[in-house]
Parts: sequence; C-alpha cells; structure tokens
Amino acid sequence: MSVLKGFTVWFTGLSGSGKSTITLELDKQLRARGIPNVEIMDGDEVREHLSKGLTFSKEDRDINIRRIAFVCHLLTRNGIPNIAAAISPYRSTREYARDMIGNFIEVHVAAPLEVCEGRDVKGLYEKARQGEIENFTGVSDPYEAPLNPEVVCHTHEETVEQSAGKIVAFLERKGYLEPVL
Amino acid sequence: MSVLKGFTVWFTGLSGSGKSTITLELDKQLRARGIPNVEIMDGDEVREHLSKGLTFSKEDRDINIRRIAFVCHLLTRNGIPNIAAAISPYRSTREYARDMIGNFIEVHVAAPLEVCEGRDVKGLYEKARQGEIENFTGVSDPYEAPLNPEVVCHTHEETVEQSAGKIVAFLERKGYLEPVL
Repeated sequence: MSVLKGFTVWFTGLSGSGKSTITLELDKQLRARGIPNVEIMDGDEVREHLSKGLTFSKEDRDINIRRIAFVCHLLTRNGIPNIAAAISPYRSTREYARDMIGNFIEVHVAAPLEVCEGRDVKGLYEKARQGEIENFTGVSDPYEAPLNPEVVCHTHEETVEQSAGKIVAFLERKGYLEPVL
Repeated sequence: MSVLKGFTVWFTGLSGSGKSTITLELDKQLRARGIPNVEIMDGDEVREHLSKGLTFSKEDRDINIRRIAFVCHLLTRNGIPNIAAAISPYRSTREYARDMIGNFIEVHVAAPLEVCEGRDVKGLYEKARQGEIENFTGVSDPYEAPLNPEVVCHTHEETVEQSAGKIVAFLERKGYLEPVL
C-alpha cells in the first residue's frame, strides 16, 4: 500500500483524551501497510522547536497552531503524510489550518472531560484544579469541539486499535491511501 | 533529471548580497531540469509564518534560524529539495542547522559590504547608518562569514546565472541530482 497524495491527520481533543496514544498506533498501522515516512507533529515537541516561550493564552495558542499548520501544509503539498497532535481548542484556528492545508482530516478525540480528568496521566488536571496551572483547557480555558470532523474517536468506548483503524479506513475510502486488495 | 536525495541549499550573506535573486534563479534552473518542487524558505516569509514578533537580537535571530533549520530538516529527510535564504549571520547557528539537516550545502553569497550598501535595494543601509534600524548586520551587528562553505558566490563579479549554475554543478557532482547525460 502506498500514499496516493499527501495529507494531514489533525487530532484535536482535551489533554488526556488519547491523541498521542492514537498517533503512535496510527503510525504503527500505517507502517505495517508499507508507509514508513509519516511525520508526527506532536504538540509538546513542536512547541520546543517552533514556539518556545509562548504561553497558553488564546493568542499564543493560536500562533502555535498556525505554525504547526504551516509546516503540515509544506509536508502535505509535497506528498508527505503527517499527523498533528495538539489540543488545538479553538474552532476558528482549526479552520485556518484546514484552509491552509487542504488535504485535512480532522479527528476529534472525544473522551468526556471526566474521563480525561480521571486518567490524569501527567497529573495536570489536579494541578489545574488547584490553580497551579493557568489556562488549562477544559478546566479554566474553553474547548470548542469540532462541528463536522471527518472522524470521531470515542476513546472511552473503543480500543486504540479501533480508533486508529477508523482513521486508516477513512484514508482508504477517500483515496489518500492505495486500498488493500 | 531528478532529485536523488533531499537537500537544503543554505544561503548566508549580508542584506543586499543577492540571496533572494540567486534563490529565484536557482529555482528556475532546477525547474528547467525537471525539478518542480523546490521549497523556498525565504527569510522574510518565514519570519511571518514561524517567528512573528521576534526581534533582531542575537537570541531572537538564533531562534528564528533554528526554526527554519527544523523545517528544512523535515523536508530534507523526506527527500524534498529546499532552499533557505536568510542572512543567518552567526557561524554557530549555521553549524547547528548543518548538524540537524545533514544534506546541507552552505552557500556564501559574498558580495563585499560596500557593494551591498551601494545597491541598498530596500533603503535599509541608509536607515541603519542613520540609526533608524538597530541590530543591522554589517553596520551595527556582526556578520561571521563561513570558513568552509560548499559554494561561494561572488555576486559583484559574476552573473546570477553563473552563481546559480555553480550550485547546480555542485549538487550534480555530490550526487544530489541525477547528472545530465
């Protein structure tokens, strides 16, 4: 199987919703189908390379997301499959990314807040509730869920393999990947 | 002719030395040889997309150059030929870019300061001399010329076609481009 045209799988969802976990599984499933060169724009890593020093204010978050979108756009138009995994809480900024990138697959990682907070893998929700972290999405900052995402992953009700599998199936159906015969 | 492996042509030189002009000519010569997809990271455009708000202090210049290097690195490792055209005055930051990118062709656009200042296409040197612009490379900020660049373009003594042609010849010789038979 090979990539027929470049694309960006753009994850959006709360902290702890499962974006990074599905990213790794999606990368694994794509590799297993012969696509070794998926670029991953992970929120934290990209901040280090592109947005060091920016805060989590709305303005700074938007700048960070626009930079990720710019890089995804360059990769996509050169036929390179890529995945962006950042909270990207604002609808208008995701629409900016969609318009810039074109081949844009928005994936809502839609675990409910209480599930994400219950997982609290990094202990961030607790800190946010105690006021130690400001501008924390879902607690002290808004999250604007997508209205028409290409794929929704209910990570509290499905396995990570199922979530990633839905995305691969979408990519096949829409002609981004050569179908498996 | 086609690209055999990704690469970054990294221009460095004073304002007015001819980086953008050679970039356009190099892109044209590569297109003429059947390579249509050269990505151009122009200093000004990249600042807009990746580094809005940064100043021209050493620290901020370094951050800007490291961001350009990160994007060139992603493109290069995916086989996409690309050109970076920024002043990039500091040797250590260019070495950072070289180490990160790997297939790195440093091109010193080496017109003397008095020639660049004589051209003063954008009127920037005059403003810098009058103190209206701070941290202006060559006037109030240092420029560290490369010690061992892959190519040197003496734009005050050769035509833009000759400058770009030297770079294409280097790329062929080093196995980045399929040679013309």
